[in-house]
Amino acid sequence: MNGAETLLRTLLNNDVNVCFANPGTSEMQFVAALDRHPEMRGVLCLFEGVATGAADGYARMTGRPAATLLHLGPGLANGLANLHNARRARTPLVNVVGDHALSHKALDSPLESDIEAAAGTVSSWVRRLGAVADIGPGAADAVAAALSAGVPDPTDASDPSRTGASGAISTLIVPADLSWSPGTPPAPRRAPRPPRAADASDMARAVELLTGPEPAALLIDGAGLTESGLHAAARIQKATGTPSFCPTWPARLRRGAGVPHIQPLGYRAEAVASQLSGVRHLVLVGAREPVASFAYPGRPGVLTPRGTTVHRLVPDTGVDVLAALTELAEAVAPGVPAPAPVRAAPVPPADEELHTGNWAQVIGALLPQEAVVVDESITEGMDTLAPATADAPAHDVLGLAGLAIGQGLPVALGAALACPDRPVVCLQADGSALYTISALWSHARENLDITTVILNNRSYAILRAELERTGKGPIGPAATALLDLGRPDIDFTALAAGMGVPATRARTTAELAAQFAAALATPGPHLIEAVLRPV
Amino acid sequence: MNGAETLLRTLLNNDVNVCFANPGTSEMQFVAALDRHPEMRGVLCLFEGVATGAADGYARMTGRPAATLLHLGPGLANGLANLHNARRARTPLVNVVGDHALSHKALDSPLESDIEAAAGTVSSWVRRLGAVADIGPGAADAVAAALSAGVPDPTDASDPSRTGASGAISTLIVPADLSWSPGTPPAPRRAPRPPRAADASDMARAVELLTGPEPAALLIDGAGLTESGLHAAARIQKATGTPSFCPTWPARLRRGAGVPHIQPLGYRAEAVASQLSGVRHLVLVGAREPVASFAYPGRPGVLTPRGTTVHRLVPDTGVDVLAALTELAEAVAPGVPAPAPVRAAPVPPADEELHTGNWAQVIGALLPQEAVVVDESITEGMDTLAPATADAPAHDVLGLAGLAIGQGLPVALGAALACPDRPVVCLQADGSALYTISALWSHARENLDITTVILNNRSYAILRAELERTGKGPIGPAATALLDLGRPDIDFTALAAGMGVPATRARTTAELAAQFAAALATPGPHLIEAVLRPV
Repeated sequence: MNGAETLLRTLLNNDVNVCFANPGTSEMQFVAALDRHPEMRGVLCLFEGVATGAADGYARMTGRPAATLLHLGPGLANGLANLHNARRARTPLVNVVGDHALSHKALDSPLESDIEAAAGTVSSWVRRLGAVADIGPGAADAVAAALSAGVPDPTDASDPSRTGASGAISTLIVPADLSWSPGTPPAPRRAPRPPRAADASDMARAVELLTGPEPAALLIDGAGLTESGLHAAARIQKATGTPSFCPTWPARLRRGAGVPHIQPLGYRAEAVASQLSGVRHLVLVGAREPVASFAYPGRPGVLTPRGTTVHRLVPDTGVDVLAALTELAEAVAPGVPAPAPVRAAPVPPADEELHTGNWAQVIGALLPQEAVVVDESITEGMDTLAPATADAPAHDVLGLAGLAIGQGLPVALGAALACPDRPVVCLQADGSALYTISALWSHARENLDITTVILNNRSYAILRAELERTGKGPIGPAATALLDLGRPDIDFTALAAGMGVPATRARTTAELAAQFAAALATPGPHLIEAVLRPV
Repeated sequence: MNGAETLLRTLLNNDVNVCFANPGTSEMQFVAALDRHPEMRGVLCLFEGVATGAADGYARMTGRPAATLLHLGPGLANGLANLHNARRARTPLVNVVGDHALSHKALDSPLESDIEAAAGTVSSWVRRLGAVADIGPGAADAVAAALSAGVPDPTDASDPSRTGASGAISTLIVPADLSWSPGTPPAPRRAPRPPRAADASDMARAVELLTGPEPAALLIDGAGLTESGLHAAARIQKATGTPSFCPTWPARLRRGAGVPHIQPLGYRAEAVASQLSGVRHLVLVGAREPVASFAYPGRPGVLTPRGTTVHRLVPDTGVDVLAALTELAEAVAPGVPAPAPVRAAPVPPADEELHTGNWAQVIGALLPQEAVVVDESITEGMDTLAPATADAPAHDVLGLAGLAIGQGLPVALGAALACPDRPVVCLQADGSALYTISALWSHARENLDITTVILNNRSYAILRAELERTGKGPIGPAATALLDLGRPDIDFTALAAGMGVPATRARTTAELAAQFAAALATPGPHLIEAVLRPV
């Protein structure tokens, strides 16, 4: 047994048994060790941003971290944007970054760079291993740290959807010479620190607000957006009239028929102002206070309206969000059942050219039970997807919590590996898809049931809207050229075919419906390029 | 005029007139300003790693920095790997990274991250602008800093090939509120610090060594690898018998008919040991001491053989490499002309299935005069490309100095924009191509004369070799799966077509020759997928 095997076996002892890898020379011992431990599933990704996004998707669906295997500083750098997203999604994740042998560091060889500095921008926990004896404890600590920010116990099988990820990113830097040296015994499972209960005085104050005379609302995130959490919120609303909101694109949200509805805050500040108008008290339950994604001249960055007081019942990490929400429901709605809304199933729209206003209705009308919906539809879906799918069969939605584009296809990869019995539907904006397009190849290699719908409006539509908001008058040709994805048009069916994913193109709602139904009915990955009327 | 326009006009005043952009909301003012200043060419890249690699390629061919326009920390992160390569290539480059407005920073909105930490891993100079009055001076300082590491004066037109880049990376962080505020006048051109001359005592010592009785060799990099530098090295060799070497994959190297030959050091330690065997003194001229790319158990990382003493005539930055090499030639070879080798032009190989041993001969036989050859052929070219092209018409070769794969297609983009009258040939390994494949779309949009040859051996061939070097016995299925790029095979002709680049596939030397000649004869970008016998 060498050091790489000590590392691999310690990860297995700590229930990490998937590794999304884009290895290099300094990770070859770990790669070789995979042949001696088939219980660790190695998944090749052709770009590190695919590996980190896939690990994010995997943990959002299982509550357990996957490992990534990354090559030195540049390999980590390529994975940073999706690690940023994972950090914002509070996903537990363990990066294993191979580094040069200790004796080699001082030579400043070509790939040498400051790994710690890069890792620190996304990780809650970073450790460079210094000796073989550190490998086992270091790897066990890395997993425990990833899980010690308030993740519910994943062994609690009473509610499978309870495993909404709430963790952090650990990065373990492994010098090559430790990997090839004789190993020490692997470390056993280290129990992560369990989440705390909400503070009793915060709870009393929340009860007082919700039962008091002034209008209040809840803003819920994390495990509060599981089916159990949403039932608790619905009971609270029935008993006290308190509405609940969630972030625009939460890391994971339960939605659909039989699931109590929750209203996502709008992406635009104007929308949030309208939604929170008249709310006197906003109680945060595992959520952060809503802020604008970007500043604009003369507009406030904090979205809570003037006159609304913000109260934190549960911080966004370290506290069991679901337990707190349930306790709150018991306190203000004892014996009150959650309402069971019976709503009409969505119907497909009339056949017409695809545009922003109708594509999501097709998805909503055909979405299968227990789908995992990866939502990076951005402009095309920000106002349309939630209403169109609210009464579709119950499903989970994984959103772009960190706003760094290019997460959709990789997150779908990880979610599909985590849930082999559930269909994965990836709703993917065109511009964003190109950041990590090679994820399609991994969809094909792993033969996963992922149906990707590319929402092709041939522009960075959100930036066109932003440019218009600068108020600089008509957009000229030079600026247009930087926001327009035409000239040449990108043929996503050719890109998919080149990566081994069968693909079709839809221009009308009927074509999209037929192709979407066919893709769902046929095992393996598929891609549908939905050509939308330009925004 | 707003702050964004102050920035743009200051860059123009400092001869930065190309901007490779993947903008976001915080850069919209800069994008809008482009319409008022068509003398700044904005080039849209669909991924930040394309933008940074293109800026690298542009500066390698012009000696002048291009700007990148990147969106916040995640946008910079996506560009880091190719910035790492640019740093190792000593390329002058100016990153403009938009950030949140100052008032917005404290809100920790979704895209907030530590930009300085990420920028510091690749930049010699990082500055966050704090006030509108800082914009002009800050931008001028950024350009000067990028050029103050010993770049020859780009206005010296006496030898166009003299502008071998030798610079550094500057990163300017621009809060959005400064961009939208009323601007101050742009700053004028700031002259970069000129490079120093070599130290007189170092020069005297080098003269003594080269004319002394013990075997010596030169290791040359930077502007020493221009045609002028290679002539000086050839004169030195003729007068003193001192051979010259260069790094395996230098940032830029002049090669071909009429150009004195220089021997690249091999990629493998064994090859270098053989090349330097018997050399008593190794004199560094703008080069760093050769070290192995990676450490291996029980092998030295420094490649200079035991018994060889290393002397630094010219450090790798800050000193005029070409002037020093010329001075050395004048001292040891006064009046000695460079030999003018007359060698036979390369002939194409017999028609046969393509493999490692013959593809480069096809390229060598058909390479046009003054081609710019971007070499990311890695395993397929490391032993074959230099000999196959040594007697092709004179050309420049841009190599993977930083070893972070995924630079080839972006560097070709930048080089083609820099040299619109020269054909660009991009020799691109298959696995590496996928890191930044969307560069092909920019090749098409800008309608550039780039012929890309994908060397498709359907594996991470270099890693298979590395895994074999771990000496762990036969490679098992799990490890094989992480190094093999088949299952499914990737169809690069489909990927190219999807991005708007016409593509063909070659399986034999005759097919490659016919397709390569046709691509060179037809304006605009082309891609040839050369399917090679697996390594």
